[in-house]
Amino acid sequence: MGRLTGGDPSLLRRINSTVVLHALRATDCATLTEITRVTGLSRPTVEGVVEGLVGTGLVVEQAAEEGAARRQGRPARRFRFRAEAGHLLGLDIGAHRVTAVLSDLDGRVLGTLSKDVTETAPAEIRLERLRSAVAELLRRAGVARSSLRAVGAASPGIVGADGTVRLGTALPQWTGLRLGERLSRSFRCPVIVENDANAAAVAEHWKGSATDCDDVVFVLAGLSPGAGSLIGGRLHRGYGGAAGEIGALHLLGREAKPEALLSTTDEPLPPLDERAVTEVFAGARRGDRRARAAVDRFVERLVHDVAALVLALDPELVVIGGWAAGLEDALEPLRRELARYCLRPPRVALSTLGEAVVATGALRLALDHVEEELFAVESTVTARR
Amino acid sequence: MGRLTGGDPSLLRRINSTVVLHALRATDCATLTEITRVTGLSRPTVEGVVEGLVGTGLVVEQAAEEGAARRQGRPARRFRFRAEAGHLLGLDIGAHRVTAVLSDLDGRVLGTLSKDVTETAPAEIRLERLRSAVAELLRRAGVARSSLRAVGAASPGIVGADGTVRLGTALPQWTGLRLGERLSRSFRCPVIVENDANAAAVAEHWKGSATDCDDVVFVLAGLSPGAGSLIGGRLHRGYGGAAGEIGALHLLGREAKPEALLSTTDEPLPPLDERAVTEVFAGARRGDRRARAAVDRFVERLVHDVAALVLALDPELVVIGGWAAGLEDALEPLRRELARYCLRPPRVALSTLGEAVVATGALRLALDHVEEELFAVESTVTARR
Repeated sequence: MGRLTGGDPSLLRRINSTVVLHALRATDCATLTEITRVTGLSRPTVEGVVEGLVGTGLVVEQAAEEGAARRQGRPARRFRFRAEAGHLLGLDIGAHRVTAVLSDLDGRVLGTLSKDVTETAPAEIRLERLRSAVAELLRRAGVARSSLRAVGAASPGIVGADGTVRLGTALPQWTGLRLGERLSRSFRCPVIVENDANAAAVAEHWKGSATDCDDVVFVLAGLSPGAGSLIGGRLHRGYGGAAGEIGALHLLGREAKPEALLSTTDEPLPPLDERAVTEVFAGARRGDRRARAAVDRFVERLVHDVAALVLALDPELVVIGGWAAGLEDALEPLRRELARYCLRPPRVALSTLGEAVVATGALRLALDHVEEELFAVESTVTARR
Repeated sequence: MGRLTGGDPSLLRRINSTVVLHALRATDCATLTEITRVTGLSRPTVEGVVEGLVGTGLVVEQAAEEGAARRQGRPARRFRFRAEAGHLLGLDIGAHRVTAVLSDLDGRVLGTLSKDVTETAPAEIRLERLRSAVAELLRRAGVARSSLRAVGAASPGIVGADGTVRLGTALPQWTGLRLGERLSRSFRCPVIVENDANAAAVAEHWKGSATDCDDVVFVLAGLSPGAGSLIGGRLHRGYGGAAGEIGALHLLGREAKPEALLSTTDEPLPPLDERAVTEVFAGARRGDRRARAAVDRFVERLVHDVAALVLALDPELVVIGGWAAGLEDALEPLRRELARYCLRPPRVALSTLGEAVVATGALRLALDHVEEELFAVESTVTARR
């Protein structure tokens, strides 16, 4: 049992720092008097804490406005959180493309850069494309690599807590890859590795279709389908990081793979070829009979997978994404069928983040990491609302 | 933003009370000196808190042992938590049976009582059987109704946060029943209502097959199948309380209901007749060909449902229960098939709590409620480990 009363001066200092930082981050800038009022701390405590934060570079004194300086002999000093004191990267390592997105410590996006990669590229080539995308993005934004505070990276596959890809059949040489360790060689800051659908769920909650929901399933409806879930606003990874890997489910009920379902010929589509998929959806919309039948088969499969997730988890909202085009045709059938089969059907929405969804989620995970460091004590105290 | 420093005397007193109660509950009895050492509180604080707890009846001074009294002029006073200061009930409202289990404040079971009820009984009759079981149990145990501190009750169906059965097709007149409110008329203490599979998951985690796991799916493999999940040791109810209601899933992949799957004739079994099910399992074990085929069909269906849950949630452990007999025959096929389809197959175990599993879980939910009241502040402080 821990000691619950009495004083640990360094813990108290950390709590107070956190409280002040939190207050400053929620506003443009504030005077010491304002901080004292908002935080409930004493004036001397606030003065000490702010001085310490200025020392770390996370807080800076704003130059007094000319007008204010003239009106009063000595204007109140104003302080602000320096979002530019550090930077974050979100990385999406996909089958056809690698993407890097850069932000400041407030998560404000400063730039994005994608590079194509062939789906058959070996792991080394794929990682090299990613490194080159990152280098170009940092150079264009004029941000030093040493300014990075955290990097989030997302890829298909089951990702272990140590950043190793436990199973990843969607990308060549991916299973067993120590992705976290490999990426860490390029950065001096922490690297957080996550499954792509999990990252996408986080992104939708942050700035997509799920900003008002804490219980969300994101379905990455690609040819290597997966899902990510938030429960009570937190990512549900599962015991072994495999939660939501529903791609295997169709093996149980039926034999067809999505490549076969979506084919308009006797041959299945090339694996992971999302361009071919887009064409089938377009064909169905033009009225092509075979394309229409293919899309219907695919939607039936999607309904089955999503229903399994919904029955297991009972989310408030299901967000469908992962492809740029075509998915809107699946929305109505999905809503209709879920209402038939689910005891409490969830809302169903399309992703609003498009192709950026996975990189955006990876960026948010990096931001979460930094915020947890900065605001750890605060979260502890308010964990139970 | 809340005020994080400074003193709230009543909160501090409550924290200290909680700490002392927690320490006393973890031991048989303790002296003030021992409490002071374990809690890190000052001697005068401990004295004041213990005096207050004695006043509430939750703590009592132990009579000094004869020997100890003689050896020293004035032996140290010893105090203990009075588990008998209050009582708890766990209720299982099933299709064929209602069960009540009684415990003290430590969750030690003092008695159990079941009454049969016909599956077609209207809600009023079912509740009356339950009331009569409770009255008889309290009378036999010599426990006054006024001593009850909390009641947990579990039944099939989707149970809303307000204790109303949102959907319950397994029991007549169950959908829409304000079960919590109805039960509350018989008790002056809080009544917590929960889905039966959810309660069973809690029971397995408390004292069944899942005591060493925090990520568990319990599959109630009855004719009205359902599942309950613990994620990180906490019950996952879902946004609308419908999580794990996988009974609907087979509607998607196939048309057969379990009553039809398990039939050895052209007619399905009577709905919810678990005795008929037990006979089919026994027949299969004796080598009856039609019974064997029926069990195989049922296991195939079970595998499909469980696989959907496992792919969605990725638990560490799946516990199968809900029937007294036959399920052990399903265990090996289930393990084999899950290993084929799941990327990270979980362990699979049989319930060790038998028919008591749901009532035991309901009791634990009542105990959780009381502990949350007694130890609320403690949980707040240690919520983030």
